[in-house]
Amino acid sequence: MIEDISIRYLDSFADKTLNAPILIEGLPGIGQVGKLVAEYMIQALGAEKIGEITSLYFPPQVILDEDGTARLSRNELFLCRTPAKDIIFLVGDHQSTSGEGHYILADFYCDVAKELGVRRIYTLGGFGVGHLVNEPRVLGAVNRPELREQLEAAGVMFQRPEPGGGIVGAAGLILALAVPREIDAVCLMGETSGYLVDPMAASSVLGILANLIEIPVDPTNLNDRAAEMEKAIENLVESEQHKDEELSYIG
Amino acid sequence: MIEDISIRYLDSFADKTLNAPILIEGLPGIGQVGKLVAEYMIQALGAEKIGEITSLYFPPQVILDEDGTARLSRNELFLCRTPAKDIIFLVGDHQSTSGEGHYILADFYCDVAKELGVRRIYTLGGFGVGHLVNEPRVLGAVNRPELREQLEAAGVMFQRPEPGGGIVGAAGLILALAVPREIDAVCLMGETSGYLVDPMAASSVLGILANLIEIPVDPTNLNDRAAEMEKAIENLVESEQHKDEELSYIG
Amino acid sequence: MIEDISIRYLDSFADKTLNAPILIEGLPGIGQVGKLVAEYMIQALGAEKIGEITSLYFPPQVILDEDGTARLSRNELFLCRTPAKDIIFLVGDHQSTSGEGHYILADFYCDVAKELGVRRIYTLGGFGVGHLVNEPRVLGAVNRPELREQLEAAGVMFQRPEPGGGIVGAAGLILALAVPREIDAVCLMGETSGYLVDPMAASSVLGILANLIEIPVDPTNLNDRAAEMEKAIENLVESEQHKDEELSYIG
Amino acid sequence: MIEDISIRYLDSFADKTLNAPILIEGLPGIGQVGKLVAEYMIQALGAEKIGEITSLYFPPQVILDEDGTARLSRNELFLCRTPAKDIIFLVGDHQSTSGEGHYILADFYCDVAKELGVRRIYTLGGFGVGHLVNEPRVLGAVNRPELREQLEAAGVMFQRPEPGGGIVGAAGLILALAVPREIDAVCLMGETSGYLVDPMAASSVLGILANLIEIPVDPTNLNDRAAEMEKAIENLVESEQHKDEELSYIG
Repeated sequence: MIEDISIRYLDSFADKTLNAPILIEGLPGIGQVGKLVAEYMIQALGAEKIGEITSLYFPPQVILDEDGTARLSRNELFLCRTPAKDIIFLVGDHQSTSGEGHYILADFYCDVAKELGVRRIYTLGGFGVGHLVNEPRVLGAVNRPELREQLEAAGVMFQRPEPGGGIVGAAGLILALAVPREIDAVCLMGETSGYLVDPMAASSVLGILANLIEIPVDPTNLNDRAAEMEKAIENLVESEQHKDEELSYIG
Repeated sequence: MIEDISIRYLDSFADKTLNAPILIEGLPGIGQVGKLVAEYMIQALGAEKIGEITSLYFPPQVILDEDGTARLSRNELFLCRTPAKDIIFLVGDHQSTSGEGHYILADFYCDVAKELGVRRIYTLGGFGVGHLVNEPRVLGAVNRPELREQLEAAGVMFQRPEPGGGIVGAAGLILALAVPREIDAVCLMGETSGYLVDPMAASSVLGILANLIEIPVDPTNLNDRAAEMEKAIENLVESEQHKDEELSYIG
Repeated sequence: MIEDISIRYLDSFADKTLNAPILIEGLPGIGQVGKLVAEYMIQALGAEKIGEITSLYFPPQVILDEDGTARLSRNELFLCRTPAKDIIFLVGDHQSTSGEGHYILADFYCDVAKELGVRRIYTLGGFGVGHLVNEPRVLGAVNRPELREQLEAAGVMFQRPEPGGGIVGAAGLILALAVPREIDAVCLMGETSGYLVDPMAASSVLGILANLIEIPVDPTNLNDRAAEMEKAIENLVESEQHKDEELSYIG
Repeated sequence: MIEDISIRYLDSFADKTLNAPILIEGLPGIGQVGKLVAEYMIQALGAEKIGEITSLYFPPQVILDEDGTARLSRNELFLCRTPAKDIIFLVGDHQSTSGEGHYILADFYCDVAKELGVRRIYTLGGFGVGHLVNEPRVLGAVNRPELREQLEAAGVMFQRPEPGGGIVGAAGLILALAVPREIDAVCLMGETSGYLVDPMAASSVLGILANLIEIPVDPTNLNDRAAEMEKAIENLVESEQHKDEELSYIG
């Protein structure tokens, strides 16, 4: 019988002794902000894959690799060893398709973090505002109040949430489920329209995250991509305004 | 592995010996009537939190507190000790997202009531009628016929239900699932349009409930809020009529 | 922990020794045909309740009885003892809300039938045709081919099904799940528009069923109700035609 | 209690010793391409049924056979013994109705393949392109890269998938879940509009599959059906163009 969730560590990751590890979660979500940041960091820092997670709570489909090989939808763990600390990344194709699966997977991720001795978790996401954002701020959430001050010093905003306001999916649940395991966890959310994949929001999050973890990450490529997108949107907006003007001549 | 439902009692509630306890359930529902009443009573009576319930049947999201701290969606238990009887309140962010979860949670609430020696349960809710209600009545349901007379004497109406008419969610299921545990349970439902959060319906329910449990609760603040809302709706209705009149001049 | 499905036999049904029992299933479904027939027979034959089935696969709501007492959504077993054979009826408020629940409940019903020594099961339902039917036929299905001849002799039609055509819910699943328990089972479906509760279709099914089980059931009241409905629909159709004529005068 | 999934082998299949068996999966899916190919081969090769699979993850309905007998929705196993190799076919009425059921069933199919000593699995399907296809290509996927070369030599195309592109349901999941069981598996998908049952796509897939497994299958009947459908669609398109022309005269 297939298990609800399976994790497989790569053989290359035989020695699970890590140096003051932190975990950065960047699964798919609003504006793909978390995914963009985590995958960019994996590439920029040359992190190496150490494990794969599959689950029947993911969509029932396989992904085709470029060579035509099918593999299960999955989440992946990457590791980057640095002198100061080791960084584990949690990225992947999908989040759960069911509410209960979200809880069970987030709980599993926290088990993994505990097992690997993770000292702090950063979950990344987008904060949908429903309109284009010129200079996206980074909003934060924490899993104990003492963590807030350090984030604010780094430029993270703590917006008074609407009553009942929350964070849906892994980025939020991990924060709460890390508490009984005594792992500090913070969530960084880049403001985003929510309509588009948003490298601008990702760029804002990356800048603050790199500062917080004191690991320099060259943001050039992500910033370039954000600048391109910003330009493309500007052109789109201008051409729309142009159309409006033409229409007003006619009218 | 995460449990389906977890309850955590606060350390301050070490002594679970209660004095003739009753349980008042006011979870979210139609017009938020039950929630308004129970949360108002908690504040008015100075009840103290004694426990928290989390469950993977709640929506997969965390709630942000005012200081930016994330916590799981949860239900909460509050306790108010009075000379005559102790009152436990069951309130919270959400009900279940699935049909099966509704049953499992309601059954769990009844287990908790049994464990704490609860003698009677009051479940609170709204009764949606689809139009604005000027003087909302309070409709009732019971889990054994003998309980009806006392409610009627207190002004609760027992409307002949439409065939197959029922009560959805915790407010109803708790009544039925309390029967095999030999706990009396009654449901009080304030008439409400069902479109708006309804302090007027809540005010009606509070008046009758306070009488029934013989615990005075100052209704001033809730009544004020109801009066404000009543005024706001009147203004809205008048301004709509005004518009209609203007339109009839034109037409 | 609440069970998936619970059955409770009434104390009055202590002696479960039955005389050549058959089971008639009439749960809610298309046109409420099965429900109408089974509930009519229960009343006409003076069958007595012997048991109740509750399940978390039913909708999460309670039903209010006329005296304001709340009870779980449930299915019920009734028994009518006759000299020739005993008849068990399975009726109720709802069927399952989930696909898996449908299987689990139908399997449970077959377990009950086996335990009570049932020799044949009749499942009743409507066969939706999407238009009004003047003289509804009764269509049949069986769980072994040998049963077909007797049904045809009684006037049941076996329409060549469309490829992949089937019967959804308990009325169908019980047939298939009775096979490994070696219980004969047949399904009788009255043709119905599918839009309305249909006493005409029910009347057709009742006539054939009473013949098949060789138990006379006075159909007067059901036929009266069917005649009333037929008249009401005729009036409705006429008044619509009248409107069309008036419109053609205008146009 | 009913099991999640049940398999029943026919008595005629007492000797499960097979000769270098392969498994061909052709369950319902896009354009019914896989189903058409597998069922055609079963008939053309005179394969015999050896087993039936039922599951509560299938829709909760029974299928009526031509004689009016109801049976559970099911999948079926057929066997064709040839001198060179034995061929097992997996066909059926439905796939799972839930995401989790898809995983559990695909895993079960791989268990069956392992138990029967299957050396290679062919899963068949349609590749929906959203428009009519004149000469449908056959696209492929594999469960290890080494399998690709042989497919390409047989005319299977390996299109660079869109990022995140995948295969939904059994045809894809079986590929991935066969890997830990060390069974080679390939998926053949005929290009199809996705709107219609598509014998043309099926014909393309059959041609390549018969070559790959080195078992000649007379494609005449399937090709005839494809030609008929092609003609019918041409007529439809012409008559639409005709209408357009008539409209342009009017306009």
